[in-house]
Amino acid sequence: MNKVLILLAVFALTLPLAAHAEKNTGSDVWLPTLVTETPQEGFALAIKLARMGVKSTQSDKEVLFREREKYSQDADSLIHASEVIAAYFQTVAAANNYWK
Amino acid sequence: MNKVLILLAVFALTLPLAAHAEKNTGSDVWLPTLVTETPQEGFALAIKLARMGVKSTQSDKEVLFREREKYSQDADSLIHASEVIAAYFQTVAAANNYWK
Amino acid sequence: MNKVLILLAVFALTLPLAAHAEKNTGSDVWLPTLVTETPQEGFALAIKLARMGVKSTQSDKEVLFREREKYSQDADSLIHASEVIAAYFQTVAAANNYWK
Amino acid sequence: MNKVLILLAVFALTLPLAAHAEKNTGSDVWLPTLVTETPQEGFALAIKLARMGVKSTQSDKEVLFREREKYSQDADSLIHASEVIAAYFQTVAAANNYWK
Amino acid sequence: MNKVLILLAVFALTLPLAAHAEKNTGSDVWLPTLVTETPQEGFALAIKLARMGVKSTQSDKEVLFREREKYSQDADSLIHASEVIAAYFQTVAAANNYWK
Amino acid sequence: MNKVLILLAVFALTLPLAAHAEKNTGSDVWLPTLVTETPQEGFALAIKLARMGVKSTQSDKEVLFREREKYSQDADSLIHASEVIAAYFQTVAAANNYWK
Repeated sequence: MNKVLILLAVFALTLPLAAHAEKNTGSDVWLPTLVTETPQEGFALAIKLARMGVKSTQSDKEVLFREREKYSQDADSLIHASEVIAAYFQTVAAANNYWK
Repeated sequence: MNKVLILLAVFALTLPLAAHAEKNTGSDVWLPTLVTETPQEGFALAIKLARMGVKSTQSDKEVLFREREKYSQDADSLIHASEVIAAYFQTVAAANNYWK
Repeated sequence: MNKVLILLAVFALTLPLAAHAEKNTGSDVWLPTLVTETPQEGFALAIKLARMGVKSTQSDKEVLFREREKYSQDADSLIHASEVIAAYFQTVAAANNYWK
Repeated sequence: MNKVLILLAVFALTLPLAAHAEKNTGSDVWLPTLVTETPQEGFALAIKLARMGVKSTQSDKEVLFREREKYSQDADSLIHASEVIAAYFQTVAAANNYWK
Repeated sequence: MNKVLILLAVFALTLPLAAHAEKNTGSDVWLPTLVTETPQEGFALAIKLARMGVKSTQSDKEVLFREREKYSQDADSLIHASEVIAAYFQTVAAANNYWK
Repeated sequence: MNKVLILLAVFALTLPLAAHAEKNTGSDVWLPTLVTETPQEGFALAIKLARMGVKSTQSDKEVLFREREKYSQDADSLIHASEVIAAYFQTVAAANNYWK
């Protein structure tokens, strides 16, 4: 039961990522600007950048699905993921002059 | 006894997180601004951002509750959590021109 | 003997942390400003912020006391702790315009 | 089957890296500027810098091919790779005045 | 023989650290300024700050001596130590306006 | 065969580092400025700083040679090394006003 729940949750995470992988082929424009309307949209962009960073290293949809299990079993990975988002958010926030 | 205490403490941590998970559905605005009145409020916002970063990766309340045990058994995770807060605090503090 | 010395040293570290935990209840102001007189005071503030980051994740005094043993047995944790202080010191130093 | 897919995916990653290794001999210019046309090109440059950082430590093509297996078996490495790209992206984005 | 050499090397590292521990009691001023004459002096100051960060967590000379063995047996710790110095060097370099 | 190749590659890395260790005695100037002609030279300087950070913790040539094996057997160390270079590159790039 524990495992099933984890798999469902991580599935929800990796699914859009893999869906992206099919859409963003070759010359697609996925990052035209770092400017967003609000800090919250900037946070969402930081999450997207973090995922694209992962995808740049491992783009195979099947592998991403399989890796989800390891990923969700290391609680520290969840903190680590938040740390990576923080690093991208620093850049996005500065690019927006901190939305001031 | 040791374990019971840890569980109680981590429960206190993850409870509001999971409560958030239910409130912040879809189009909710949870980050309208990075501006805060005081450095201390900025620190609290940094903690919130760190948690939202975790939640963006694993939003299932049940999973978050279960992961709390692993999390609390790795002492290094506590230092790591403080590091992630530090990364968000850098952004929040700069956005507030360091409250000067 | 080795263990006793470690415990004494870590006890010295965690004691003020736990003492803080009792003082800083609810609405206490513990971070009114990031401005300090000297770089050395700024370094001390960075250490305080790092500890408050830990405390925000695990506030139970008993747990903090127990976790001290794991913490002190991983030599890498000591380097990590210095890294977290460095991240907060970057913010404090910039907030003070680097004390120039 | 799982392993075969992972190997194929990582092969795709390390192949251009190793190909680079043969092209970038000695006095080659591979980083004439940090300026790019778009944020997306800046992101691609950040990935290149992350790879050159790896190559500066381990330039042997055979070794890079062999290390790919370990690398792909640690799910946390994928998050870590994204973190390293984020660090380079901070520099590239600032160099381009965040493409404003 | 291997171990003896490691111990000698790490002894050389931790000795001044422990010596510091005895000198810097209470009200000592050890960080009056972040300004240095040259980038190289700034690098030395970054190393000092990294060590003081370690010392703030574990000040017991005996413990520091004993921890040296673990520290030197994890090759990754050496890279980590350089990373911590880098974080402090960012602050010192900015405080000196990058010595321009 | 695998091990031989790794050893050769890592030997190439650590050899100049150890050679440095003999040259840079005491009062040597090795960091007169952070200014470089091009971003690529700045990247090379970042690598040098990362190595000097390692050397500041473990200066014994024999130890550095021996540690090379552990270092090369942890694939994550290669990513970590790139991360440390990124941190120094942030400083070098900013010091050069991003070569604009």
